[in-house]
Amino acid sequence: MRIDILSIFPEMFAPLHQSIVGKAQQKGLLDLHTHDFRENATNKQRHVDDMPYGGGQGMLLMPQPIFDCMEQIPQSPTKPPRVILLDPAGKRFDQKMAEELAQEEQLIFICGHYEGYDERIKTLVTDEISLGDFVLTGGEVAATVMVDAVVRLLPGVLGKAASHEDDSFSSGLLEYPQYTRPEDFRGMKVPEVLMSGHHENIRKWRLNESLKKTLARRPDLLETYQTNAEEEKMLQGLRENTQDVVE
Amino acid sequence: MRIDILSIFPEMFAPLHQSIVGKAQQKGLLDLHTHDFRENATNKQRHVDDMPYGGGQGMLLMPQPIFDCMEQIPQSPTKPPRVILLDPAGKRFDQKMAEELAQEEQLIFICGHYEGYDERIKTLVTDEISLGDFVLTGGEVAATVMVDAVVRLLPGVLGKAASHEDDSFSSGLLEYPQYTRPEDFRGMKVPEVLMSGHHENIRKWRLNESLKKTLARRPDLLETYQTNAEEEKMLQGLRENTQDVVE
Repeated sequence: MRIDILSIFPEMFAPLHQSIVGKAQQKGLLDLHTHDFRENATNKQRHVDDMPYGGGQGMLLMPQPIFDCMEQIPQSPTKPPRVILLDPAGKRFDQKMAEELAQEEQLIFICGHYEGYDERIKTLVTDEISLGDFVLTGGEVAATVMVDAVVRLLPGVLGKAASHEDDSFSSGLLEYPQYTRPEDFRGMKVPEVLMSGHHENIRKWRLNESLKKTLARRPDLLETYQTNAEEEKMLQGLRENTQDVVE
Repeated sequence: MRIDILSIFPEMFAPLHQSIVGKAQQKGLLDLHTHDFRENATNKQRHVDDMPYGGGQGMLLMPQPIFDCMEQIPQSPTKPPRVILLDPAGKRFDQKMAEELAQEEQLIFICGHYEGYDERIKTLVTDEISLGDFVLTGGEVAATVMVDAVVRLLPGVLGKAASHEDDSFSSGLLEYPQYTRPEDFRGMKVPEVLMSGHHENIRKWRLNESLKKTLARRPDLLETYQTNAEEEKMLQGLRENTQDVVE
């Protein structure tokens, strides 16, 4: 996959050269390019932003540097790239979107900074995406999160092919509690079932804990989750127990 | 504000030394510390993770290095810090939470990497927070986003005190389209009303565009938004127009 990022703060993408995403580049699975579109500014001061027409605080990114920068980016000849604008008013990023973007040959991210974009920049864009209902100083850190979520899904990036299949959200349930050594840490002990070696009991305990956590914290996930008979019975038990506590 | 971040990839926080968050540190408004808890590992190989009890793929962060690292962090004597664990099963981060965290004297972020945490680490934690319904290679990029969203709200960090007050989400509506120079860019023109100098018309146009965008993209925001009489009338007009198009 090729990823191009337009930003006047290319140093902010340092995290993408670390850890798993960094290794994906070393393995040739990801071809990442950052483009400082300030270099495309045609005015003498190299300004990339200007004041909004009609008044108002803050500055807006001008269309010209971004349009000119986009024209210099080689685009996949077989499949047009997805061009993503980071915008709090965009569609909410989630795991399904990450999986969809991981199928593409090329992604281009346009990162604004400070206040906003000239509306005409949106004519270049295929997707307006928001990381969530919060405001950031710029799109750079949001783009970094999205690239991380997408790149880890590319074949060969994670050590074991299956290792992202039992993540939270991939299964549709929140993850059960996990424990590693030592058995007893400052008086806090690992649940006995996990030390038993009884695979079926461990599987049931984990499934029940996943359902319990999801029921308590994210009941909305259960609305779309397809339960089997075993899960249905566990959920019934959990709901009855909760009721006992409330009464 | 003091912020401490526990992570075995301290280099991934490079973005926090750039731009607005970087300047907040230069101005003395933010005191940021990263702690590589691998230095607290007591085993010879400096491992910070181990296999899960009960089997399963991936590795888990062990409690010991994190507990020992936490004990070395000076804590505010007047107000205990909020200790935040980045976890996809946690409470969803949003602007309201950013505003709440911006009131604190000290925040501590614990960032896992790869698979998960030993459950006992959660006894150190006051808040489990999720950036959204997606899976990342580690908590570092999520913590960076949260620090960015919080620090920009600290008094004195943004140039003008008011400049974050008309952001999307702060008003409760999505932002109206904005335009800057030139008036005509490749045949795409700035809406005439914005060039008119007529402040009241500009205000009305912007409010109507904000309502239109929010109605189309995020009707859920309107459920909690308190409309005044003018907004109610505009919304009614927008709803009627939409119906005309559908019929």
